[in-house]
Amino acid sequence: MGFRLTPQDPTFYALFATSAQQLVEGARELTLLLGADADEREDILRRMHDIEAASDEATHEIIRRVAGSFVTPFDRADMHTLAIALEQCVDLMEAAVDLIVLYQVDEVLPRVAKQVEIISRMAELTVDAMPRMRSLKELGDYWVEVNRLENRANKQYRRMLADLFNVKKADPLTVMKHKDIIDALEATANGFEHVALTLEAIAVRES
Amino acid sequence: MGFRLTPQDPTFYALFATSAQQLVEGARELTLLLGADADEREDILRRMHDIEAASDEATHEIIRRVAGSFVTPFDRADMHTLAIALEQCVDLMEAAVDLIVLYQVDEVLPRVAKQVEIISRMAELTVDAMPRMRSLKELGDYWVEVNRLENRANKQYRRMLADLFNVKKADPLTVMKHKDIIDALEATANGFEHVALTLEAIAVRES
Amino acid sequence: MGFRLTPQDPTFYALFATSAQQLVEGARELTLLLGADADEREDILRRMHDIEAASDEATHEIIRRVAGSFVTPFDRADMHTLAIALEQCVDLMEAAVDLIVLYQVDEVLPRVAKQVEIISRMAELTVDAMPRMRSLKELGDYWVEVNRLENRANKQYRRMLADLFNVKKADPLTVMKHKDIIDALEATANGFEHVALTLEAIAVRES
Repeated sequence: MGFRLTPQDPTFYALFATSAQQLVEGARELTLLLGADADEREDILRRMHDIEAASDEATHEIIRRVAGSFVTPFDRADMHTLAIALEQCVDLMEAAVDLIVLYQVDEVLPRVAKQVEIISRMAELTVDAMPRMRSLKELGDYWVEVNRLENRANKQYRRMLADLFNVKKADPLTVMKHKDIIDALEATANGFEHVALTLEAIAVRES
Repeated sequence: MGFRLTPQDPTFYALFATSAQQLVEGARELTLLLGADADEREDILRRMHDIEAASDEATHEIIRRVAGSFVTPFDRADMHTLAIALEQCVDLMEAAVDLIVLYQVDEVLPRVAKQVEIISRMAELTVDAMPRMRSLKELGDYWVEVNRLENRANKQYRRMLADLFNVKKADPLTVMKHKDIIDALEATANGFEHVALTLEAIAVRES
Repeated sequence: MGFRLTPQDPTFYALFATSAQQLVEGARELTLLLGADADEREDILRRMHDIEAASDEATHEIIRRVAGSFVTPFDRADMHTLAIALEQCVDLMEAAVDLIVLYQVDEVLPRVAKQVEIISRMAELTVDAMPRMRSLKELGDYWVEVNRLENRANKQYRRMLADLFNVKKADPLTVMKHKDIIDALEATANGFEHVALTLEAIAVRES
């Protein structure tokens, strides 16, 4: 490759910021999907698959570069873990989009919009945190905020479960579809917490 | 922080023992919940949330201290992983308690008591193992026993699934609720196995 | 133990190859199960439990040796992670076999055969990759192929969900059983991807 990264190389942080950017784009599609009609759904699905492919590509670029560098600012295996954790979030979003389109539920549950709002906020916080990897002490607020959002997502999720099962004479197959969708969104929120924990582990190792 | 931990510092092990103690307290609430009436359920739920908050606090104290120390007895990132693995077990217990209260099933399945018994035993074993981190060779029995319990939990879980689906004319929504509860307890048992594997990985690294 | 592994020691790679071999054997039982009658099912179940026990034994042998060696070709904790990731795949296969026998569904869904075919191919690729750990540069094709298969498994899984829920007047409990089975197979395919990512992380660390 000829090219070697150094701790000062801004490309290194730019690569992670690009990868994290897919999270914001994925969250946008997820938000659009909630009010979309059948035609729009197909467009959103296609764009979400493109975002996932771009995330895949960004991840492999990071891994190639980290493996090809003599010097990286952090532990190489930690960089691999972080790249995979970011990609995993995009995969989880894609799974949620796929399920919402697949199950063709007439309307998603009212609180799904709140779940998606929390996920969108987590995506923005994660992108913002990437350049601050340079100075790990600046990440404190990010961890606190992601943790707070994850707790809120969790509470929303439990309330949605209660609502779902409290409907009189609910159709079991419809309940199963809705549960699968809110499970996928809850898994996405957990994925963002996992990214935050991965950054925290890097900070602890480097401290 | 001024204060610096050294490998000899007993505080270090005390922090992990405190964190693990939440597991025993959580398991106690889980056990109480099985025979509780509606009023008691609310009290148990409240105490379980307090335990989860205490676990969160203990975890962050460990992470702050590990990050603030010049010398730790083990790899810093391993300490982070272990602290998170312990907290995760408490979160999984809390999720199980939440679901049991939320779904208001008239009676949990008869074998749930056995699942909870196994989880209680795993919690005790995990607390006992913490001070023995000092000498990793002493942990052999702990691993064997956790592994044995995890296998038993797994067999119980499969039998419960069979029982659940073999009921004639079972109500699908009731089956879904019970399945969600036993899934959460099975995930808790897996969480304890993950703690044991994390300790094993530390032992292997330090050997 | 007296015996010490060195980077040149072929036993080291042989241990991982033996462990990975259980994956191929497990995949064979899974394939046989699809066309089996009630009697054969019991035999397959018994053999699958034997394979899982052998996998457990192989894993513990690896861990004992890695912990007992002065020199290992790679980071000790990475070797632990890889051994656990391989064992986890066998456990996931066993869970799938258990569920298929347990639920006694008259016939598995038609596409399940395709899911199992992909898993079988992933098992073969994983075994073949083990001796090439010696030279991590040779693993490129393996990662590309596992990734491609995982994407195919994922698409199959989504199509199966759609088929499952599109049946008119489907019996909810039957849908739940089928969903649990295809979820277990999807988790197995993800388990193989996790093995590939673990090998990739080792490659990155050693580069």
